[in-house]
Amino acid sequence: MMAVNLKHCAINTATLGFQCQIEQSIDAVAAAGFGAIAPWRREIEGQNVFNIAKRIRDAGLSVTGYCRGTYLPSLTIAGFQANIESNRRALDDAAILGADSFVMVVGGLPEGSKDIDAARRQVAEGAEQLLEHGKKLGVRIALEPLHPVYAAERSCLNLLSEALDMCQQIEGTMPAPSLGVCLDVYHVWWDPNLKRDIARAGVENRIFGFHVCDWLVPTNDILNDRGMMGDGIIDIPSIHAQLKKAGFNGFIETEIFSAQNWWKRPVKEILNVCAARVLTSV
Amino acid sequence: MMAVNLKHCAINTATLGFQCQIEQSIDAVAAAGFGAIAPWRREIEGQNVFNIAKRIRDAGLSVTGYCRGTYLPSLTIAGFQANIESNRRALDDAAILGADSFVMVVGGLPEGSKDIDAARRQVAEGAEQLLEHGKKLGVRIALEPLHPVYAAERSCLNLLSEALDMCQQIEGTMPAPSLGVCLDVYHVWWDPNLKRDIARAGVENRIFGFHVCDWLVPTNDILNDRGMMGDGIIDIPSIHAQLKKAGFNGFIETEIFSAQNWWKRPVKEILNVCAARVLTSV
Repeated sequence: MMAVNLKHCAINTATLGFQCQIEQSIDAVAAAGFGAIAPWRREIEGQNVFNIAKRIRDAGLSVTGYCRGTYLPSLTIAGFQANIESNRRALDDAAILGADSFVMVVGGLPEGSKDIDAARRQVAEGAEQLLEHGKKLGVRIALEPLHPVYAAERSCLNLLSEALDMCQQIEGTMPAPSLGVCLDVYHVWWDPNLKRDIARAGVENRIFGFHVCDWLVPTNDILNDRGMMGDGIIDIPSIHAQLKKAGFNGFIETEIFSAQNWWKRPVKEILNVCAARVLTSV
Repeated sequence: MMAVNLKHCAINTATLGFQCQIEQSIDAVAAAGFGAIAPWRREIEGQNVFNIAKRIRDAGLSVTGYCRGTYLPSLTIAGFQANIESNRRALDDAAILGADSFVMVVGGLPEGSKDIDAARRQVAEGAEQLLEHGKKLGVRIALEPLHPVYAAERSCLNLLSEALDMCQQIEGTMPAPSLGVCLDVYHVWWDPNLKRDIARAGVENRIFGFHVCDWLVPTNDILNDRGMMGDGIIDIPSIHAQLKKAGFNGFIETEIFSAQNWWKRPVKEILNVCAARVLTSV
């Protein structure tokens, strides 16, 4: 286990099950001792983003990732362009929030398609366009490879190596890239090449985010039955140590989708358990 | 779509939901026009295997794979050795059945373990021991990489490249290897390196089996809600074409786990739909 300081830990608001408004989440996350927050667009869009950004700053919190990108692939050019446009607007908000990165879950197969290669090409094209916009705003883009179980419906980007290849192809090698990856233990723990690829991500300075939760055995729902750190079978301390060795010193962000368990508990209880577990099980 | 001859197609008996005895399955599979069958140990063990083998031959069927290996990893040496022993006995039966290969689903993390690297090392060690036994019997062993969603509970071998690396490490390069892989589209369709790895498997003569079914959207149960070919989002003809290009000319085997749909239908209906779909959707 690595020594963890709670101030270097973040809470992704999805962990709280969207039980309260973002203002209450901000206050609760700060009160629980965390150093950062990762808000979702559903909590931000349509509101005064400047006010929310100020509230986060005033609470002493940083913003890690802004969640999350609109799925990119579409069977029509108009649909693809609309997806790009939606992401551009989200990038604008990410800039106002001062987010360290904009987290992109890239999307899977458009309805009616069986062509995953075509979906991947659209993702690369979309990421390239959005990178330009992000660079103007000073917002980094973090591609999040998702577990292959989500390949059809949520993300055709599934391996860390695949995400790194895409970054390299789009942006090339540079000391401080603007396109990188967000690494979630839930998605990558099983990958036989994980150690190799984390080392590579470190060398390429592309680790923009680190999400923790756990893989429960059994998993009752593949989307919303993720576990609290320590309750599952992921060797989180080992992955954390690999990230440290690769030079990562960003926030450790807890993100738990748990419709039947954690989301049913009071926000304060969830946060207290997260705080305890990042200290003992990460 | 590739031209498919039903006589070059097999039925894995799991597709029939184990509704009837193996004798009835043999007759029904032959009557439906298929050229081969893949029986499961639960249908064979404890019975007169010679009689079953004769019945299969008399029906004019070949045996593709014998399903399936006992999970190998264990936290104890005694447990590991018992798993090896169980697989040895199954290999003996595979030889009597005249199976083209013994299909190994290698197992995931033993209960209480978070060490997937250790599980993988046990799998390699076990496969090496079983390969020796298989060679004496003239039974090839097919490692089946399973979708990463099964990494914890069923198989720590998840990528085709990983399975091929393991074969290479254990057996080295040879013109007619006895250790190879069984490729199931359900498990590998999402892999960004699939085309590359199928080509490699062909060069190394290690494609021992080819399973087809489909990935449904949505998938309601990650274990037993697999689809009939054509009903999901896998581009099966593309994968089939890659296998052909890689030199594979073995049986196309339908294996569908479908507790809520296909398994509830009469065996004859299931087989007729399989026969139609391998001709139109593979």
